[in-house]
Amino acid sequence: MRTVYMDNGNTTPLHPDVLPAMLPYLSQHFGNPASIHAFGEEPRKGLATAREQVASLIGADKDEILFTSCGTESNNFAIKGAANALKKKGTHLITSAIEHFSVLYSFKYLEKQGFEVTYLPVDGDGLVNPDDVKAAIRKDTTLVSVMHANGEMGAIQPIAEIGKITKEAGVIFHTDAVISAGNIPVDVNEMNVDLLSMAANMFYGPKGAGALYVRKGTRILPIFDGGVQEGGRRAGTENLPGIVGMGKAAEIAKAELPERVQRITAMRDRLVGGIREKIGHIRYNGHPVKRLPGNISISMEFIEGESMLLFLNMNGIAASSGSACTSRALKASHVLTSMGVPVEVCHGSLLMTIGRENTDEDIDYVLEVLPGIVQRLRDMSPMWEDFVKSQKA
Amino acid sequence: MRTVYMDNGNTTPLHPDVLPAMLPYLSQHFGNPASIHAFGEEPRKGLATAREQVASLIGADKDEILFTSCGTESNNFAIKGAANALKKKGTHLITSAIEHFSVLYSFKYLEKQGFEVTYLPVDGDGLVNPDDVKAAIRKDTTLVSVMHANGEMGAIQPIAEIGKITKEAGVIFHTDAVISAGNIPVDVNEMNVDLLSMAANMFYGPKGAGALYVRKGTRILPIFDGGVQEGGRRAGTENLPGIVGMGKAAEIAKAELPERVQRITAMRDRLVGGIREKIGHIRYNGHPVKRLPGNISISMEFIEGESMLLFLNMNGIAASSGSACTSRALKASHVLTSMGVPVEVCHGSLLMTIGRENTDEDIDYVLEVLPGIVQRLRDMSPMWEDFVKSQKA
Repeated sequence: MRTVYMDNGNTTPLHPDVLPAMLPYLSQHFGNPASIHAFGEEPRKGLATAREQVASLIGADKDEILFTSCGTESNNFAIKGAANALKKKGTHLITSAIEHFSVLYSFKYLEKQGFEVTYLPVDGDGLVNPDDVKAAIRKDTTLVSVMHANGEMGAIQPIAEIGKITKEAGVIFHTDAVISAGNIPVDVNEMNVDLLSMAANMFYGPKGAGALYVRKGTRILPIFDGGVQEGGRRAGTENLPGIVGMGKAAEIAKAELPERVQRITAMRDRLVGGIREKIGHIRYNGHPVKRLPGNISISMEFIEGESMLLFLNMNGIAASSGSACTSRALKASHVLTSMGVPVEVCHGSLLMTIGRENTDEDIDYVLEVLPGIVQRLRDMSPMWEDFVKSQKA
Repeated sequence: MRTVYMDNGNTTPLHPDVLPAMLPYLSQHFGNPASIHAFGEEPRKGLATAREQVASLIGADKDEILFTSCGTESNNFAIKGAANALKKKGTHLITSAIEHFSVLYSFKYLEKQGFEVTYLPVDGDGLVNPDDVKAAIRKDTTLVSVMHANGEMGAIQPIAEIGKITKEAGVIFHTDAVISAGNIPVDVNEMNVDLLSMAANMFYGPKGAGALYVRKGTRILPIFDGGVQEGGRRAGTENLPGIVGMGKAAEIAKAELPERVQRITAMRDRLVGGIREKIGHIRYNGHPVKRLPGNISISMEFIEGESMLLFLNMNGIAASSGSACTSRALKASHVLTSMGVPVEVCHGSLLMTIGRENTDEDIDYVLEVLPGIVQRLRDMSPMWEDFVKSQKA
């Protein structure tokens, strides 16, 4: 049986050149970069190189990159760190209704600490309206956080426009680019952002390595107190192998990005076209054009996403129903419901995320297998039976 | 030239069996353990096995282990998490004056948030007196945090006795076992602790992986809000390769511990004996018996530790002057000054930490090289000149 991994929005396999770059830091270069002896030298160089590689991917200066352990840490760090640093200036914060849980729950935490949070809605395509950001900014607003792209339904937000508004208003702007950085072009200056979160495992780097871009002059309090690592802003011995792997993955992403985007977009369009042709009663979620190249979010009416995933898995196809953090929660996605997708339709959602290792043969195989699974599940569904009866009547 | 790594209290090289255990999780088992498809299976098993291995090393139940990114995160998580969870019950906290910066600065942070903190002194051997803990506990005390062993001068604290006191008083007890776990016996029940921090890179596991033991029923708030990983208490995609490596290192440590302790202690005693014989005007820091097997902290009068480290490095010997987080700060160690070591003597401190890869030949080599370096530095030192003159007078 063919095996097809189409869950690259969940986590990606390492690029084949990443592990070789990491290995020396898991063996001879095991030292602590803070050491003044010879064993600190190569780790120190590796850390510096990785910082330049990550900075270069997003158009930042190397001194603006802080390494973290994951995207969730970067988001918590950015939001709590900036809000608390500016607490005396104001306690009003703005975000959107479709953020990742690590953003949403950081804001929920801050609400408990006395902050006031405005959650902006999105339109039917999943987009935040920059005018809504403008209208929500008050005198006591200190931070706006709107994600770059949404992992569940792919929509890419108008970050540069929102950034212009926050810049004019003198408000700090954070974007969660965990799903986008390394997969579509990201430039912190074009985007007008002050803080930007990323994670290596989303662009063919290792798990356990993330980064936070902090624009020069942006005040942010640490969430880890302790040693002087990362300029005193993120204490803790650096995960050198992970960081070096992240740097290498960033370097590769920068070089391969145009080709990757083109190839993955072509595969996606063929897969979406094929599904539309072969399966009826579906809803294609997210903006049709302003979306991540590899992201396909489709809600199939009358069936349960969970069963669909299990059948796909039995056929060797790995896909998802939504965020990795919620896929086992069996709750309707807050992202899809925010876009106006009815709860019962949400339950039939399928998220396939195409990555650099996927091939045209993978697309053919999914198109061969998926329609049969959907039909089989509909044949077992009382909702479908009722629907078919109602059509005949 | 011979190369001798004697900075194992800073970070350790991987045990040769650890990398092979990690490699599958850096290649074919790259999936996210939260996935319901086949790619999640092996990562899920790997995560479960590592949890059992780490639990087993410290006599805990597997459900009491939360994985983190490093010792610093574990300490921040334990202290801030427990203090904040019990805020309504009381806001008085107790710790010692010789804690690692990740503990001390977590308490400094909490002081800014309105908590009151008592810092217990230590005696000349670096030990906290359990009676001091008992005397410091008030009705509004919620948390005591005293480190298991000190990385700078090796002293092992009377944790079990302190734990009895906190248990009777109904106060949560945290111990920072980052430097001790995997290097000396650690048993959470014998030690009567509720929270215990550890880090893989201190016992021949990888950087980027730490753990926090949380006794069943102990309330603790997360510091990362987000997904449901680690029972909702530590959000963020798990660093699977790191965690699996930590598990393997824990399993090995458990098996090798008695032999390791014996062999490393013998090397240490021979090295200390030799130094005492060959170098005058030194101060051996920390308790003579209640100490980490591999830890040698010696203050050499009349010279600068920094120069000593550079000369040692030129001779292929990697050592340290104190905590990795402060070694570049050129400040007198808060640990040594708390023990009554005069500031000028602190500046001549040398920290050598023997590990499982060191050999008798390493000890011979240090004994061959170090006395000459100390003499050479003293010959250049005006303080030494004054001292010699005063002796002659």
